[in-house]
Order: sequence, then structure tokens, then C-alpha cells
Amino acid sequence: MINVLIAEFIGTFLLYLIIGLCVSQPASSGIAVPLAVGIGLAALVYSCGHHSKAHFNPAATLAFFCAGTHSKKAVFPFFIVAFVGAIVAALAITILDPQGLKSITPTTLEYPKVITAEFLFTFALIWVILNVAISKKTEGNQFYGLAIGSIVAAGAYAVGPISLAAFNPAVTVALAINGFLPWSAVPIYVATQAVAACTAGLLFMSLGTTNEKELQGNPWN
Amino acid sequence: MINVLIAEFIGTFLLYLIIGLCVSQPASSGIAVPLAVGIGLAALVYSCGHHSKAHFNPAATLAFFCAGTHSKKAVFPFFIVAFVGAIVAALAITILDPQGLKSITPTTLEYPKVITAEFLFTFALIWVILNVAISKKTEGNQFYGLAIGSIVAAGAYAVGPISLAAFNPAVTVALAINGFLPWSAVPIYVATQAVAACTAGLLFMSLGTTNEKELQGNPWN
Amino acid sequence: MINVLIAEFIGTFLLYLIIGLCVSQPASSGIAVPLAVGIGLAALVYSCGHHSKAHFNPAATLAFFCAGTHSKKAVFPFFIVAFVGAIVAALAITILDPQGLKSITPTTLEYPKVITAEFLFTFALIWVILNVAISKKTEGNQFYGLAIGSIVAAGAYAVGPISLAAFNPAVTVALAINGFLPWSAVPIYVATQAVAACTAGLLFMSLGTTNEKELQGNPWN
Amino acid sequence: MINVLIAEFIGTFLLYLIIGLCVSQPASSGIAVPLAVGIGLAALVYSCGHHSKAHFNPAATLAFFCAGTHSKKAVFPFFIVAFVGAIVAALAITILDPQGLKSITPTTLEYPKVITAEFLFTFALIWVILNVAISKKTEGNQFYGLAIGSIVAAGAYAVGPISLAAFNPAVTVALAINGFLPWSAVPIYVATQAVAACTAGLLFMSLGTTNEKELQGNPWN
Repeated sequence: MINVLIAEFIGTFLLYLIIGLCVSQPASSGIAVPLAVGIGLAALVYSCGHHSKAHFNPAATLAFFCAGTHSKKAVFPFFIVAFVGAIVAALAITILDPQGLKSITPTTLEYPKVITAEFLFTFALIWVILNVAISKKTEGNQFYGLAIGSIVAAGAYAVGPISLAAFNPAVTVALAINGFLPWSAVPIYVATQAVAACTAGLLFMSLGTTNEKELQGNPWN
Repeated sequence: MINVLIAEFIGTFLLYLIIGLCVSQPASSGIAVPLAVGIGLAALVYSCGHHSKAHFNPAATLAFFCAGTHSKKAVFPFFIVAFVGAIVAALAITILDPQGLKSITPTTLEYPKVITAEFLFTFALIWVILNVAISKKTEGNQFYGLAIGSIVAAGAYAVGPISLAAFNPAVTVALAINGFLPWSAVPIYVATQAVAACTAGLLFMSLGTTNEKELQGNPWN
Repeated sequence: MINVLIAEFIGTFLLYLIIGLCVSQPASSGIAVPLAVGIGLAALVYSCGHHSKAHFNPAATLAFFCAGTHSKKAVFPFFIVAFVGAIVAALAITILDPQGLKSITPTTLEYPKVITAEFLFTFALIWVILNVAISKKTEGNQFYGLAIGSIVAAGAYAVGPISLAAFNPAVTVALAINGFLPWSAVPIYVATQAVAACTAGLLFMSLGTTNEKELQGNPWN
Repeated sequence: MINVLIAEFIGTFLLYLIIGLCVSQPASSGIAVPLAVGIGLAALVYSCGHHSKAHFNPAATLAFFCAGTHSKKAVFPFFIVAFVGAIVAALAITILDPQGLKSITPTTLEYPKVITAEFLFTFALIWVILNVAISKKTEGNQFYGLAIGSIVAAGAYAVGPISLAAFNPAVTVALAINGFLPWSAVPIYVATQAVAACTAGLLFMSLGTTNEKELQGNPWN
């Protein structure tokens, strides 16, 4: 279990490190930010998936649990390590780049749009994750990292300016720490993401295509 | 069959949601729009292909039918669900982003160029789909999503400013709902895409490389 | 053999169609041109590779011949069809977009730089092709299309403004037809690309990692 | 061994050739530079990995050694050939594009940020390399090139303006030759990259997922 959590920490830490640095000065990645985050996530999923299934996202953990493939007792450690990884990355960015962060003003949020955007694309992300990670029909596939990174990038191109495209409670908290989101938005984001994750998890389970081995529990469950 | 149609709905809904949001304010995805749509499509194909072969496009359904691998009675449900998915997404965008849509003026269309562009790149898309999805020589490949998403992105970079790069009757209707295309253009687009799909389907079948299992009918036929 | 040549025609035609349209008005693909061409090429290689090994490039045919895996009598038909495919695409572009082409002025060419750029990146392209398409150590791989498209895109980002990044005699001729290159440059480009292809082919053969089945002749040889 | 070193030379030479040309006039790849380098690296890894495991980076060689999978006597030749490949590419760029290079002024370096950035993303790169190249749980995967190229691109988008995103001692020296980095920065970069590589190598080994065959020595060890 400790190796699993080390991999989850490394992945979530590096994921938010890439996100936070790409959206801050002096990175100026501009129109390439969603692409940078997507391919970074793909690489991290490929490097950690065999250790820990590369959740990097409490919404993913929740969805695996709703789909019946993640044991109850392993949910809490995965939650904790995802939040810790993202928070440590947010603090590292504070140290690495204080000037860039000073000029940040939180995005203006129109909540009906924000909730719709975060719900639809968190659902899309979790739908992709479940189908490439625990479906019996795609067992043994090697495109899982590419698919997961790509849906995050496409979603960020689509709704980035509406909601900052968090799709992830741990990333949401880290964005608040670095001042990209107001703290008052965090509970709304997290609740929306949790509902989207449960919706996707229950829908996926109802389709009956979950891999038997996943349902019987993996080594790290 | 119901699970198949659920997957087709999710895929077509999310595909047009990405398209419509990326080309509207405030997304401003600019030069990245074709890339965003291509990688989004790749992720959706990887997440739905094992459920329903990921048509997301009545032209693809028609081409599979022309190539002899899609049963006659399954054509109509696939058509309906693709149009419904794209139309629901168009309505969702109307709700999500009314300001951005107000400033849209339909693209000026020069029909000889539009028809040439839509014919050539719908043919290219369907040629790629048939060769990666039902050829016996590429059976079991894992690059199908990447190949399909890539040809759409390349085609959109090439002819996006000429025809908006629909390549798909359901997307064409949704673009008209959101005001990107005039309704008078829809029949011309759809007829062109249908001719391109049949051309590609019949050419592919004449090459004699269709997978036997596909010809004998899949579980969802 | 006729099916092989149909696939080569479709691939080379669509490859140059994407190239020519992306670099002309009104496509304005700007900084995304190399990416569009690279991913388009990847999709075309995945859709045609199982038919014809997806040469799309007389330099690739020459390199396979130098490496001992392409029969002498099949060289000429592959050469012809690649040039025909690219030339037909160039004519299609002339019909599709005459305004955009009117404003083209041939790139200013500094020949020592042009020759160096075309030699180095045609060598890089052919090196990648040989290693992913006929090496015994990568037999059965599925990354061949991605690798080939990626090296073309990377090369085009690196030397596009120096030499237009043709790396392909058929594309070179088509670029001259559309006025992007002066006709006087064509022999210099083609000779450079041929030397680079032979260098890569002979080097690859000397490494002794060619697949036995390729050396004994493929169905289409 | 000679074939191994030829492949390492070709890969490192072409890798720095792409880097150096993309960041110089007249390439103007701008915001696409990290992407161009990442996909170029992916293609080179796919073309050379079966010859030499595609180090192209003394930090990777060091990490393989720390992880126990690279023999002591093979370390030195790999170091030499990586530096020679990058240095020859830097000289080729000097010949190919002297005007562009004249206008270069070395990046202003804030060393605490530079060291943090180079440490974190060299660690990320090496972590990805080790997990996709020598882990027993990902043995036989085909995503290694994509994963390695993607993490380099994501890292370059994140910290390129801070440290030029070298992540590689051979690239660091070549950047100094072409005037992008002051020579005084080279020892600091190389030491940081070496510490990051050893950290990743030792951490990876402690997780106990190294492939047995790698531990027993490969043909080229």
C-alpha cells in the first residue's frame, strides 16, 4: 500500500505542478495550456498506472468506489494522498514563482455555467477513465493514458475560461491556494465533481461491462 | 442494444459539446480548435468503441452499411441517436453560453468549395474509420481512436475556414441550431457527406480486406 | 498490386491536399501547420499501411530498396503513383482555392541551408520509417504511424521556414505546381532527398536488424 | 556495442538539432516549441529504443545505473556519445543558422528557481523513463516513446521560461555552445540534473518493480 500511495503522491504532485506553473507567469503557455496539462497527465498516468491505477483525483477514486471496484477502506487513503500531493505542489509553486502569482485575480465565476461545465466534463473525464481502466472489453489496452489526457485537454479547451476546468477536487483546492479560485467556490466545485463522478460510476456499473478481476479486487485494494 | 445507444448518445453529445464550446466565446481556443476536437474525439472513441463501435456520425453508419458490416435494421436507431445526441448538445450550449452565441454570424459559404472540401475530407475520415475499425489486416489494433481523431483535426486545419469542417450530418444540424451554419446549407452538406461516405464504403468493400467477423455481424448488429 | 497502388494514391493525394490547404489562405493554420500535417500523415499511415506500407514518398520507396526490402520491379510503380497522387492534389488545390494561391511568392531559398535542412530531416524521417516499419526488433508495433507523423511535424517546426520542410520528392513537385517553390529548386531538393534516403537505407541495412520476412519479400513486392 | 552507440549518436544529435533549430530564428515555432521537441523526442525514442534503449541523456544513463540495470563499464561510452551527439548538433546549428544565433542573449537565470525547476522536471522525466522502460509491470508496452516525449513537452511548457527546460546534461552543454545559456550555469545545471536522476533511480529501485531481465543485464550491457 505504501508504494501505491507514493505513486499517487508523485502523480498528483506533478500534475498540479504542471497545471499551476503553466497558468502562471512567466510560463505564458497561453493557448497551449490545456495541451500541456493533457500530455503531462498522459505521461504521469503511463508512469504510475501500474503502481496505483493513477487516480490523481478524488473524483476518480469515488467513481471507482461507486462502480464497485475500489474497496471502502482504500478510499480514505487515496483521498488524503491526492489532496496532500496537490497542496504540496501549490505550496511549491508559491515558493517557485511569487511574482507571477501576485498578479492573479480569481476568475469571475457565473455559477450556473460553472456548475454545468464542471458537471459535464467531470462526467466525461470519469466516463473515459472507467471505460479505459476497468472495462472488461478494453482489458490490456495501452491507450488509457492517451485517452485520459486527451479528454482533460479537450475539456479544458472547451470550458477553461468558464470554470478553469478543474474536474478534480484536489486540483480545485490547489487552485484556491494559489489564488486562481476564491475559497468560497471550492465547496460548489467539489460537490459538483462528486455528483458527476457518482453519476458516471453508477451508469458505468449498470452497463455491466466491468472487468471481473477489478470487481474481485486488485492487489492494492 | 440499449447499452449501445447509450454509448452512442454519450459520445455524440460530448463530441458536439466540445465542438460547439470550442468555437464559441469565451473559449477562444482559436488555432487550437481542430486539435481540441480531434483529441476529444479520440478519447470518446476509446471510451465508447467497445460498446458501440463509436460511430457518432450518420455518415459513418452509412459507410459501415455500404461496406456490408452494419445490419439494415440497426441503421435507423444509430441515425436517430446521433442526431439526438448532437441536438441535445446544441441546446445545452444555447443554455450554457447565450452571450457568445449572439455574436455569431454564419460563415460565408462558397458552395463549390464547400462541397469539394466536405466531400474530400468526409471521404478521408470514412476511409480512415473503415481501415482502422473493420479491416481484417488491422484487427485488434489500438490506434483506431488516435487515427480517427487525427484525421478530423488535420481536415479541420485544412478546410475549417472553407466549410467549418463538419464531415458529419449530426454535427451539421447542430451547427445550424447554434447559428454557425445557415439552415439552407444543411441539405447540401448532408447530401455531400452521404455521397462521400458511400463512395468510401463501396471502395473499401471492393478492396476485399473487410474482417470476416464484421461481415458476419457483430453482437450489436 | 492494383489495391496497393490505390492505397498509395489515396494516401499521397490526401497528404499533399492537407499540406497545400494548410499553408494557403484562408486556412491560416499558422503555427499549427506542422502539427496538422504530422497528425494527418499519422492517420493516413494507419489507414493505408496494411495495404501498401504507406510510402507516400519516393524517398521512402528508394530507402526500402536500398535496405533490400523492396523489389526492383515494384520501385517504378510506387514512384509513379506517389508523383501522380501529389500532382492531382496540387491541381485540386488550384481549383479549390485560386485566390489564396495568387498571393503566394516562392520562399527565398539559401541553398546551402536548404540542402543541409532537407538532407538532415529527410535522413531523420527515413531513419524513423525504416526502424518502425521493417526492423525485426519492432515487428508488430502499433506506434509506426505516430512515430512517422511526429518526426515530420518536428522537422517542419525546425526547418519549415528554411526549406518548407518537403522531405519528399512528390511533395516537392506539388509545392512547385502550387507556386510555393520555384521550379529551379526541384532538382536540388530531389537530389538531396534521394541522397539522404540512400544514406539512411544503407546505414539501416548495415546494422543488421532488418526483419527476415521483409528481406524475403512481402505480398506486394 | 558499436551499433548501440551509432543509435545513441543519431538520437542525441537529432534531438538537439530539433531543440536548437526550433528556438532560433527563423523557425519562430514560438508556443509550439515544447510540443515540437516532445513529439520529435517521441519519434526518435521509437526509432532508436530497440537499438540502445534511447537514453539520449546522461541523466537517464545515470538513473539506469542507480536503478541497477546499466552495467558500470557501459556508463562511460553512453556519457561520451550523448555529449558528442549534442555538441555536433550545436556545431551544425552554428553553421546552418549564424544570423539567428547572433541575436541570442542568454536567458536571465534566477538560480533558486532554476535549480528547483530543473530538479523537479528532471526527476519527473526520469521517473517516467524508468517506469515505462524497465518496470516489470509495463514490460512490452508500446507507449514508452509517447510518455517520454509528453513529459518533456509538459515540463518545457511549465518551466521553459524559468530554466530553458534542459533536463539533460548533454543538451545543457549544447545550449551553452549556441549561446542560449551562460557557461557559468552549466555545472549548476548538470549537478542538479544528476542529483534528480539519482533520486529517481534509487526511489524506483526501492519500489521493487524493476524487470528481472533488465536487472540481469541486457544484450547491450
